[in-house]
Amino acid sequence: MENGAKSWAFRGTQKLSAKQSKDSKLMVTIREALDKLMGNLNEDDDRSVIPLGHGDPSAFPCFRTTPVAEDAIVDAVRSSKFNCYSPAAGIPPARRAIAEYLSRDLPYKLSPDDVSVTLGCTQAIEIIITALARPGANILVPRPGYPLYEARAAFSNLEVRHFDLIPEKGWEVDLDSVEALTDDNTVAMVIIGPGNPCGNIAETARKLGIIVIADEVYSHLVFGNKQFVPMGEFGSIVPVLTVGSISKRWIVPGWGLGWIATNDPCGLLKQTGILDSIKKYLNISSDPATFIQGAIPKILENTTEEFFSDIVNTMKEDADIFYSKIKEIPGIACPQKPEGAMSAMVNLNLSLLEGINDDMDFCAKLAKEESVIVLPGSAVGMKNWIRITFAIEPVFLAEGLDRIKSFCERHAKKL
Amino acid sequence: MENGAKSWAFRGTQKLSAKQSKDSKLMVTIREALDKLMGNLNEDDDRSVIPLGHGDPSAFPCFRTTPVAEDAIVDAVRSSKFNCYSPAAGIPPARRAIAEYLSRDLPYKLSPDDVSVTLGCTQAIEIIITALARPGANILVPRPGYPLYEARAAFSNLEVRHFDLIPEKGWEVDLDSVEALTDDNTVAMVIIGPGNPCGNIAETARKLGIIVIADEVYSHLVFGNKQFVPMGEFGSIVPVLTVGSISKRWIVPGWGLGWIATNDPCGLLKQTGILDSIKKYLNISSDPATFIQGAIPKILENTTEEFFSDIVNTMKEDADIFYSKIKEIPGIACPQKPEGAMSAMVNLNLSLLEGINDDMDFCAKLAKEESVIVLPGSAVGMKNWIRITFAIEPVFLAEGLDRIKSFCERHAKKL
Repeated sequence: MENGAKSWAFRGTQKLSAKQSKDSKLMVTIREALDKLMGNLNEDDDRSVIPLGHGDPSAFPCFRTTPVAEDAIVDAVRSSKFNCYSPAAGIPPARRAIAEYLSRDLPYKLSPDDVSVTLGCTQAIEIIITALARPGANILVPRPGYPLYEARAAFSNLEVRHFDLIPEKGWEVDLDSVEALTDDNTVAMVIIGPGNPCGNIAETARKLGIIVIADEVYSHLVFGNKQFVPMGEFGSIVPVLTVGSISKRWIVPGWGLGWIATNDPCGLLKQTGILDSIKKYLNISSDPATFIQGAIPKILENTTEEFFSDIVNTMKEDADIFYSKIKEIPGIACPQKPEGAMSAMVNLNLSLLEGINDDMDFCAKLAKEESVIVLPGSAVGMKNWIRITFAIEPVFLAEGLDRIKSFCERHAKKL
Repeated sequence: MENGAKSWAFRGTQKLSAKQSKDSKLMVTIREALDKLMGNLNEDDDRSVIPLGHGDPSAFPCFRTTPVAEDAIVDAVRSSKFNCYSPAAGIPPARRAIAEYLSRDLPYKLSPDDVSVTLGCTQAIEIIITALARPGANILVPRPGYPLYEARAAFSNLEVRHFDLIPEKGWEVDLDSVEALTDDNTVAMVIIGPGNPCGNIAETARKLGIIVIADEVYSHLVFGNKQFVPMGEFGSIVPVLTVGSISKRWIVPGWGLGWIATNDPCGLLKQTGILDSIKKYLNISSDPATFIQGAIPKILENTTEEFFSDIVNTMKEDADIFYSKIKEIPGIACPQKPEGAMSAMVNLNLSLLEGINDDMDFCAKLAKEESVIVLPGSAVGMKNWIRITFAIEPVFLAEGLDRIKSFCERHAKKL
């Protein structure tokens, strides 16, 4: 090297690259998968892009968040009382408000100490995975799932094992596969709500000696026959770590306000040192903006039932449109009408389609030919399925499904 | 166990506990050290607690942030355009605005691609340490320093080596000690501004083949003889990763808006894979609230020089009060009048004090007896020093120093 400098000693960490390339289907985050599809769009297509790939309806007026939430943020900022650093687990008023909010659906009262405020579910997942990881341990996650669990587990050297959700049974947890996968090194299983048979899951987890991580980011977003039952209701049977946020129910995924709640009346999470690990990791991590935390009491306490039911009704209308139109599209099939959350898994029947290799190919071509973005099922562990987000403005959803129909008709195999 | 359950298989990760207990003086974060001292306060003391332990003057009216910043947040929230997810590296308007803001002080223009938006400096540090960590590598950090570097390095299995700052030379980097510590596995050195001899540091780092991580959270907070010179000015001599945020300059540490800027016209950080590692880690990490990012262009572009100079003038007044009063306190000594940032290191002369074992003991007793909180120097790597934050309301600073004087007079060794 010139000027007598040594050769440069630094290089990027192998840890992130090696793990990611090893199992690229699982490791790619939803964000990466969608970015790639956006890169495939046809610039000459004048039509609007219809985004059916991710659960973020915030851009649509019918999904605008409640003025209560916006006002709460404005009040908190203008008060100038929340410009300071936050304590590691969150400011007391936020912890208290979240504990009260969650307790409404539980048979016992959570204490503020049972709640840690996090940067959305993303950080909540990061913290829990980090706290549980130890050499040789493994964790069970659902398929279809949410790839951040896999990504964070890979990063922390925590082995991941996948159990199935049963399409024909409304994506119910296959408890037999959970039992088959569990061994002495299994520490936890993740379930993603809503709609799980929580009681059965709790009994099974207890029998197996593992905790339940309940991802309830979609809590209360149920319509149709499903009820929302928080896994924490069974906290005295098996320790539960509940992950949640305001992102989906208030349609503000960009606000980054979530939580970890400890549903563990028997105190096992404390005894085994897990709460301590969570606390220590929180202490070296970033915090949600203090003023957003400061707004939380008003957001949780003052949002009207009317706002919530308007949102759910729009999503129900979306689910109806989605399911009726899907049934008319050749080559794809949805096993059951969605009754909660914001997306549905749809199976590709490749034998009826021509010139489509797999789910990634289907999505890439759909983006290019029809300016519609849907998520390849591989991103959530289900090859040759696709995930369609129906929670957008109903008229755009209808348009998007019509374009998918054109696409499938155009690619239908000639008989 | 009852009900036929297996014994519970989960337990807290050893990783966080073991590393922390091994070198507890270094591993304790500032937050933990201060929490402990707050626990020592005397409840029966009616006087206000004087917080001289951490750099957060946001509670004091004379340090209230500019209305420009508050308005920008309110506008962004009310627009409802920023409730969505953020791209991993930040939204383009924020990246652009930060690039332009930083370029004002550089001899070249940063591109928005050179900027990643982070959750304050805390996350910026986490990301860089994570990206650089590999088995066997080491990183050089200053003493006194900022313990988050040590905490994150320990977590990532990156070895830390400490070089000295020279008290008698205004805490200048001891470049000889930097050279002595560097070996083939050294990847980077951290410098914390303001006030470093940047040109010399750049030449040394280049010679040694290591990058410079420039922690410029206190950028522009200089008064007296010091100039603010960004390390990035020397980016063509040695690759620089600059860490910064709006926390200190705008007195909003709770807003969590920071950045990593790549000052590397020669493209070495890209070649060696470091930028790629940063990008991958950003992709699995939480993001700053999208609407705070949305407010950044107005905050950076519209804040008046008057606001900045008012803040700096108050800090200069504080530094004057601090230095003149410190000189009158027996048993402690400050080597040089502070000319930047928000805190100063003060040496304890234990031979002149009675009943004080070390810096931790000094701070614990001071909290209890005088309701004044200062940081033990051990928390930043300097045993038997203390760190006093002078950036608070001047009248409270004077009161706090008067109480420290009472304390030291009371504990003065009888001759």
